[in-house]
Amino acid sequence: MSFRTIEWRDNKVIMIDQTRLPREEVYVEYTDFKSVAEAIRGMVVRGAPAIGVAAAMGIALGARDIIADTQESFFQQLSNICDVMAKTRPTAVNLFWAIERMKRVAEGYRDRDLNFIREMLKAEAIRVEEEDQQICRSIGRHGAAVIKEGATVLTHCNAGGLATAGYGTALGVIRAAHEAGKNVKVFADETRPWLQGARLTAWELMKEGIPVTLISDNMAGFFMKKGEIDCIVVGADRIAANGDTANKIGTYSVAVLAKENRIPFYVAAPISTLDLTLASGDDIPIEERHSREVTHLNGFPIAPEGVMVRNPAFDVTPARYITGIITEKGVVRGDYERELKALVGK
Amino acid sequence: MSFRTIEWRDNKVIMIDQTRLPREEVYVEYTDFKSVAEAIRGMVVRGAPAIGVAAAMGIALGARDIIADTQESFFQQLSNICDVMAKTRPTAVNLFWAIERMKRVAEGYRDRDLNFIREMLKAEAIRVEEEDQQICRSIGRHGAAVIKEGATVLTHCNAGGLATAGYGTALGVIRAAHEAGKNVKVFADETRPWLQGARLTAWELMKEGIPVTLISDNMAGFFMKKGEIDCIVVGADRIAANGDTANKIGTYSVAVLAKENRIPFYVAAPISTLDLTLASGDDIPIEERHSREVTHLNGFPIAPEGVMVRNPAFDVTPARYITGIITEKGVVRGDYERELKALVGK
Repeated sequence: MSFRTIEWRDNKVIMIDQTRLPREEVYVEYTDFKSVAEAIRGMVVRGAPAIGVAAAMGIALGARDIIADTQESFFQQLSNICDVMAKTRPTAVNLFWAIERMKRVAEGYRDRDLNFIREMLKAEAIRVEEEDQQICRSIGRHGAAVIKEGATVLTHCNAGGLATAGYGTALGVIRAAHEAGKNVKVFADETRPWLQGARLTAWELMKEGIPVTLISDNMAGFFMKKGEIDCIVVGADRIAANGDTANKIGTYSVAVLAKENRIPFYVAAPISTLDLTLASGDDIPIEERHSREVTHLNGFPIAPEGVMVRNPAFDVTPARYITGIITEKGVVRGDYERELKALVGK
Repeated sequence: MSFRTIEWRDNKVIMIDQTRLPREEVYVEYTDFKSVAEAIRGMVVRGAPAIGVAAAMGIALGARDIIADTQESFFQQLSNICDVMAKTRPTAVNLFWAIERMKRVAEGYRDRDLNFIREMLKAEAIRVEEEDQQICRSIGRHGAAVIKEGATVLTHCNAGGLATAGYGTALGVIRAAHEAGKNVKVFADETRPWLQGARLTAWELMKEGIPVTLISDNMAGFFMKKGEIDCIVVGADRIAANGDTANKIGTYSVAVLAKENRIPFYVAAPISTLDLTLASGDDIPIEERHSREVTHLNGFPIAPEGVMVRNPAFDVTPARYITGIITEKGVVRGDYERELKALVGK
C-alpha cells in the first residue's frame, strides 16, 4: 500500500484526512480521544473496519490522559470515554465491537497498575489495527476465487484500504484478484452525497494501477443492462443474523439492479461486522446526516436555498439479494442464518 | 408560471439560462441560429419538448438571416441550418420532429416570396411553443387522475416547465393534481451528473409552493422500500413503437426499483416524443457527454485527475416496467405497440 489509513506512532494516532482526498494527501496527528471522536463523526476516517480501529486507538489515547487516584475513578472515566466514542456514528457495528473489545481488555486487568492497563489498551488498539490488515488479506484470498479472469467488477462507496487499516474488504477482493494475475477492471459508483467512490475508490485504485472507470450512481443500472458488469462486490457496515446487510446508501439499489440483470452480488466484510443480536436488517439503526452534504459541494450550493432534504447515510439490502458474504473465514452462501452462526463459532 | 422557459419576442429568442439556475434567474437573448444550436448543445435549454421549441425558433431565426437570390439557394441554406440543429443532441426525438415540421412548412410554400416563407417559419415556431403549453396542460389533466389524494410522487430529472414551453410533462401531472386541490408531495432525485433535479425541479416546485424533498439518486430505492413513495412520474426523450422509453440516465434504475417495490411507474410525454419508426428502445441512440460533467462541479474537481469516466446521458426503460404512458390524448397502458399506434392515428 502506498498510503497509511491509520496508525499509532509515538503515542499519537495518525490518520490520512479523507475529507481532503483526492486533492491533498494530508496526514493528521491526534493526541486526545475527543479529537479522534470528532474525526470519526466528521468522516476524516470512515468505513466500518477503519472506524473500529480509530475507536480502539482513540480509547487508548484517552486512557493515557485519565487522571485517577483509584481504580473506580479510572474505570468510570474510561467508561465515559467509551460512551463518547459510541455516540459518533450509529450504523457501523465495528465501532461498538471495538469499544467492547477495549472494555474487555481493561476489565481483564481490573486490579493491575493503571499504567499497565494503559499499556495493554494501547497494545490492544495496535492489535486491532494489525489484525484488520490480516483479516482483509484473508477476505481478499477467499474473495479472489469468485472473480473471473477478465471480469469487470462494480463497487459502490469505498470499502478499500481507506475504509480499513489497509488493503480493504471489497477492494481487498479486487486487489487479491489483481495480485493473482487476473485482469480485473472496476466500475466505481461515485457514491453521492459524500462521493467516496469518486474521491476515494478511484484514487486508491489509480494508485494501485487497477483500471477504474468512474460513473454516477444512477448509471450502474445502464451498464448492468448492457452486459458490461460481470460481478458486484461491496462492503458492509452491519450484517444481521439473517444476512441482511447495512451498507452505504445506494447499495440496496445496486443489489436490486443486479438481481434484475442476473449479476452476482457479493458483500465482503470481516466477522466483526456481524451483529447476531439483530434478527434482521429492520433492526439496524440508520444514520441520517446533515442536509448540507446533499445541498453543497466544496461549500458551494448546488440546490435552492431552504429546500427540504432527506439524507440517510445507509440502507439495508435484504439477504435474498446477496449471492455470498465473503469473510476472512470463507464465503457464506444460501442459509445465512445457519451459516453465519456457524462461522462465528469457528 | 412565474418564469418563461423560452419565447419569441421582437425577432429574438429569449431563454432562461438553465446552466445558471438556481443561483441566478437570467434570461438570455439569441439573435442567430448558431448561438441557439450552441445553447441546445450546452444545455442552456434542455428537456425534450423545450429542445423541440428551441430548434424551431432557431430555424426561424436562421431563415431571417439567409441571403439568397434564388429559391434553390434559400432552401439549400435552410437545409444547412436544419442540419446544424440536428447535430446538437442525438437522443430527444422532439428535436428531429420540430426540424421536420419546420421543413414541411417551408416546402409547403416553396414557390412563394422568401419573406413570406420567413414569416410562415416564424409563425410555425411560435405555434410549436404555444401548442406545447396546451399539450402539457392536457397531459396534466389526464395524468392528475392517476395521482391519489395525499400521494408522495417521486420524479427524476426535470420534466417540468423548464423542460417544455411551460407547465411541464411529469411536473405538469403533479401541477395539475396540485391545482385540482390534491395534497401532493414530491421527492426529487438530484439527477447526477447535471443535477437537473436539485437545480431545476426543486427550484420550480418551490416557486409553485408544492412541497419538495431533495434526495440523491441512490436514495430513491431506500424510500421506495420504506413505503414512502406512492407513485413515480418521469418524462421522456424518445418512446419507441413498443413503448420502450429513453429518458435521463437513472430512469431505468428507478423503474426497476419501482417494479421490485410494486409502485406504479408512469411516463408523461407529448405524442411528439413517440418515434414509431423504431421497433424497440434498442435502436434509440444514447448520447455520451463530456467526462467533465462527472469529474467537476462548478469548475471544481471532485475526482482524481485523469480518471476514466463513462457519461451516458440517457438510458432506456423497457416497456414492461411502465405502468402507463400519459399523453395529451389520454393514458396508454398494456399493449403499447397497438395502443401507441392507435393514439397517433387519433
